[in-house]
Amino acid sequence: MDIDEWRIEIDRIDELLIDLLNQRSVCAIEIGRIKRQVGLPIYSPSREKEVIEHVTIRNGGPLDKDAVRRLFERIIDESRRIERVTIEKEIEQRARKQAAAKVVPKRKPKARG
Amino acid sequence: MDIDEWRIEIDRIDELLIDLLNQRSVCAIEIGRIKRQVGLPIYSPSREKEVIEHVTIRNGGPLDKDAVRRLFERIIDESRRIERVTIEKEIEQRARKQAAAKVVPKRKPKARG
Repeated sequence: MDIDEWRIEIDRIDELLIDLLNQRSVCAIEIGRIKRQVGLPIYSPSREKEVIEHVTIRNGGPLDKDAVRRLFERIIDESRRIERVTIEKEIEQRARKQAAAKVVPKRKPKARG
Repeated sequence: MDIDEWRIEIDRIDELLIDLLNQRSVCAIEIGRIKRQVGLPIYSPSREKEVIEHVTIRNGGPLDKDAVRRLFERIIDESRRIERVTIEKEIEQRARKQAAAKVVPKRKPKARG
């Protein structure tokens, strides 16, 4: 295979990677929603350690342990960021709706006749 | 789904991610070998820009453009690192073999009789 053929293969892998990274973010957002409902903090150091350990065990190379750690620190960081941003946006939207509901209260229809 | 179920889903995604990241590294190493043979530098800014553009177009969210860029900058960086390290190791091994071959030259078997 020449350079261009290997690059086509990388592009194919990258498409799978971006889809999976987005799927992972969806899971993180869902976890964020549950955490907010039950009052848990978004940051969970023990879970993040567990995630790194899990992929380190799974790692078959050629990436080494440190590379895997650096990659998943970035992945976890971005998952946490989107989790936080999405939840904050939802809280803000809800607050705005509630405020709007107070400004324009529902009127009872006038009784006819 | 509860937090534990979402985490199981994340673990499953992470297993796919680590396998794909390693597959990507294999491609990068192969490209590195070809580049060395033809005397091209490992760092290719135009190709890296192309990779980021490719995944940005592919991105369906919820990750935003900046998150995708940060993630793939890390992925590209680790691919380039493993590419460089592997190629350097191979050059070193070859040099060591050549040096050893010089120290202990092959002897012709003595003719009998």
